[in-house]
Amino acid sequence: MNKPRRWSAETIAIGSELLLGGHLDTNSLFIAGQLAICGIELRYKTTVGDDVSDIVAVLKTAVRRARVVVLTGGLGPTVDDLTREAVACATDRRLGRRKVALDEMAARLAEWGRTPTTSQIRQARIPAGADLLSNPVGTAPGFAVIWKGSFLAALPGVPREMEPMVRESVLPKLQQWLRDQRAVGVTPMVRRVLHTSGVPESVVDQKLIGIIPKGSPIQLGIYASPMEIMVSLTGPAAINQLGAMSIDALFDEARDRLRDILYGEADDTMESVVGRLLGEQRLTLAVAESCTGGLIGHRLTQISGSSAYLDRVAVTYSNRAKVEMLGVPKDMIGRHGAVSSEVAAAMARGIRERSGTSIGLSVTGIAGPGGATETKPVGLVFVGLDGGTNAALTKEFRFHGDRQVIKQRASQAALDLLRRWLIGMSHR
Amino acid sequence: MNKPRRWSAETIAIGSELLLGGHLDTNSLFIAGQLAICGIELRYKTTVGDDVSDIVAVLKTAVRRARVVVLTGGLGPTVDDLTREAVACATDRRLGRRKVALDEMAARLAEWGRTPTTSQIRQARIPAGADLLSNPVGTAPGFAVIWKGSFLAALPGVPREMEPMVRESVLPKLQQWLRDQRAVGVTPMVRRVLHTSGVPESVVDQKLIGIIPKGSPIQLGIYASPMEIMVSLTGPAAINQLGAMSIDALFDEARDRLRDILYGEADDTMESVVGRLLGEQRLTLAVAESCTGGLIGHRLTQISGSSAYLDRVAVTYSNRAKVEMLGVPKDMIGRHGAVSSEVAAAMARGIRERSGTSIGLSVTGIAGPGGATETKPVGLVFVGLDGGTNAALTKEFRFHGDRQVIKQRASQAALDLLRRWLIGMSHR
Repeated sequence: MNKPRRWSAETIAIGSELLLGGHLDTNSLFIAGQLAICGIELRYKTTVGDDVSDIVAVLKTAVRRARVVVLTGGLGPTVDDLTREAVACATDRRLGRRKVALDEMAARLAEWGRTPTTSQIRQARIPAGADLLSNPVGTAPGFAVIWKGSFLAALPGVPREMEPMVRESVLPKLQQWLRDQRAVGVTPMVRRVLHTSGVPESVVDQKLIGIIPKGSPIQLGIYASPMEIMVSLTGPAAINQLGAMSIDALFDEARDRLRDILYGEADDTMESVVGRLLGEQRLTLAVAESCTGGLIGHRLTQISGSSAYLDRVAVTYSNRAKVEMLGVPKDMIGRHGAVSSEVAAAMARGIRERSGTSIGLSVTGIAGPGGATETKPVGLVFVGLDGGTNAALTKEFRFHGDRQVIKQRASQAALDLLRRWLIGMSHR
Repeated sequence: MNKPRRWSAETIAIGSELLLGGHLDTNSLFIAGQLAICGIELRYKTTVGDDVSDIVAVLKTAVRRARVVVLTGGLGPTVDDLTREAVACATDRRLGRRKVALDEMAARLAEWGRTPTTSQIRQARIPAGADLLSNPVGTAPGFAVIWKGSFLAALPGVPREMEPMVRESVLPKLQQWLRDQRAVGVTPMVRRVLHTSGVPESVVDQKLIGIIPKGSPIQLGIYASPMEIMVSLTGPAAINQLGAMSIDALFDEARDRLRDILYGEADDTMESVVGRLLGEQRLTLAVAESCTGGLIGHRLTQISGSSAYLDRVAVTYSNRAKVEMLGVPKDMIGRHGAVSSEVAAAMARGIRERSGTSIGLSVTGIAGPGGATETKPVGLVFVGLDGGTNAALTKEFRFHGDRQVIKQRASQAALDLLRRWLIGMSHR
């Protein structure tokens, strides 16, 4: 029944543009995962603009409720970059130029044939007594400081600079500090993730009912997004309580209960899983898209090395393009409509035959908001797959949501149909 | 020199899944814009998990630093939806079922041929004395309450439910409350936005140097993202100070200074601007993509009605596909390589001729991380445009970033080349 004692963490993202949203936050998941390794739980996320007094106020609140505070952003060379000033002000430390920081910056810039500008030199200013955190990728160093019993780390906001700094500098320092604090009650946590597709949240919920034994310290999370339902198990890496199931055992149980709808684990995406299967089976793919408009091709080509299995994509938005690029019979479109099982099958066959690939995959549907008819509502989508002799199938879907969501769901459904076909599952 | 007095606002997003990031925050921009209409400035954004005591702690901090607090999420039917409980607990009010809320929910569900479930009935529980905020789209009502001198509104996290509730219910109540508070110093603010592309932040910065007169209450913001540099002007709608330039005058000045690199205003996106130009000029488009893998087609088809001008897209990922789908001469690929100005031109011409559209647009490049050669680095991209007789051009780009960023930048560059061609600008 006892939840393992966990220390709280807060992230503070600094930047006026972040207050306005429209940005995809990719830092939190990474930071949460890294902190969990040390037994620290991310419980608060704050965003604040480029204003010293606002940042100071947020810092003061953070150290009251979190023992670990990770600041991202505001370390660049411009006058809007105020994290250094704010931390110095809040912690009542002087800001001074740190020679090591300047030397490292100059060395990095020299590699690129440049010397530090006056603005960049500002980046070497660090609060007195703070530990320097080297930036192995960019020019702005970070720093760590202990203040009011909390561990504060300031890092750049750019993921490819921040991530190695957390792994290489912040974590070792934090772990040392935790030992110094004799934070013996802090339990290292692990988080395991499963990805499902094709069913609503309530179905996943139902399948997992009662999976966590009473009194277990492991927590179950079920998160819905337009393209999938993600399941997470979070808990202590080692369980010493008598009879308690380990997180590994529960993870296996969850995987088993979800096996029909599971497409991946951890960092898998549908396109990475499909790509892996195609690569392993040395199969090639061509895609014919209508309502998804290129999204399937875009997703498949997000994966490095996709040129090994993806030959081509035809986005046949007009009926004429379906006829000319895929050889869909004109009278078939007239008889059944472009959004039909028949046309989806002909599109998949057409792209496969014309490209000479092992598999043809197709999507046709009504993304809306226009284009619906009395019998064909917005969200009606047909997916077709053609794998050569006696290996063709189509499937009908009815999606809800706006144009963007319907495109996403249709692309996911098409890739999932292909995935199931590749692993030899009967199509459902 | 006096900044207009503005009241601060804080948004609190509730949901454990939001702590982990990976979500695109589309709510903040909307809420910030709506609050600005009332002269309220969004200064803090907090995210907190599904935990009553954490939410209570965050609420207490928020009312200390913000006069307006907008909570989103946590109003659904599941046991993880704890916003109602947390607000009741923090403000020391009883939670009771509100008849009007239940009636409205039942009426909405009846339209869909359903009746409220036990879980949904929980959604009608509202803190005593709070004002009910009707949800015209979904089943979960919101509520507003004044606590410790701050205006608190709790709303669903789903944008299409939250947005009409802010416009129709929250704003009128907030404006009335501000009047009751005799918040006479509160100045309604406006925010104007411009979008530029094709140049780095430093160029935009340089062009706008000194644009804001000394002592003006108007603030300039310059925000960089992989695809564009966005410029904002924020300030009081009306300026009474003698000699001060109005935000409209400054906006015109900014537009003039940026005219060569400006592609849109306000909610414009590159794909919406290109779509509008194609529609106005009654031109049709076909696209041949290589390294962008379908992203250009995906972006163009995010716009409703794009089927009027977009005929087809060929994603010719393999060289064979370039030959077969576009008629690019095989020996040209052998001589110049698939990533070359010559092949980009042949791709654009090929897709235009085969589709019979007014314009053919093409992209070929190296998205990386593999595929580079001694003379052709990762990030080398050629864009081609063919508009028929004597109207062909190509342009070379060298982008930095990872695979995803290079795809984004290449798609933006291609659409921008098309945009410039459509408005008859000489290509730069």
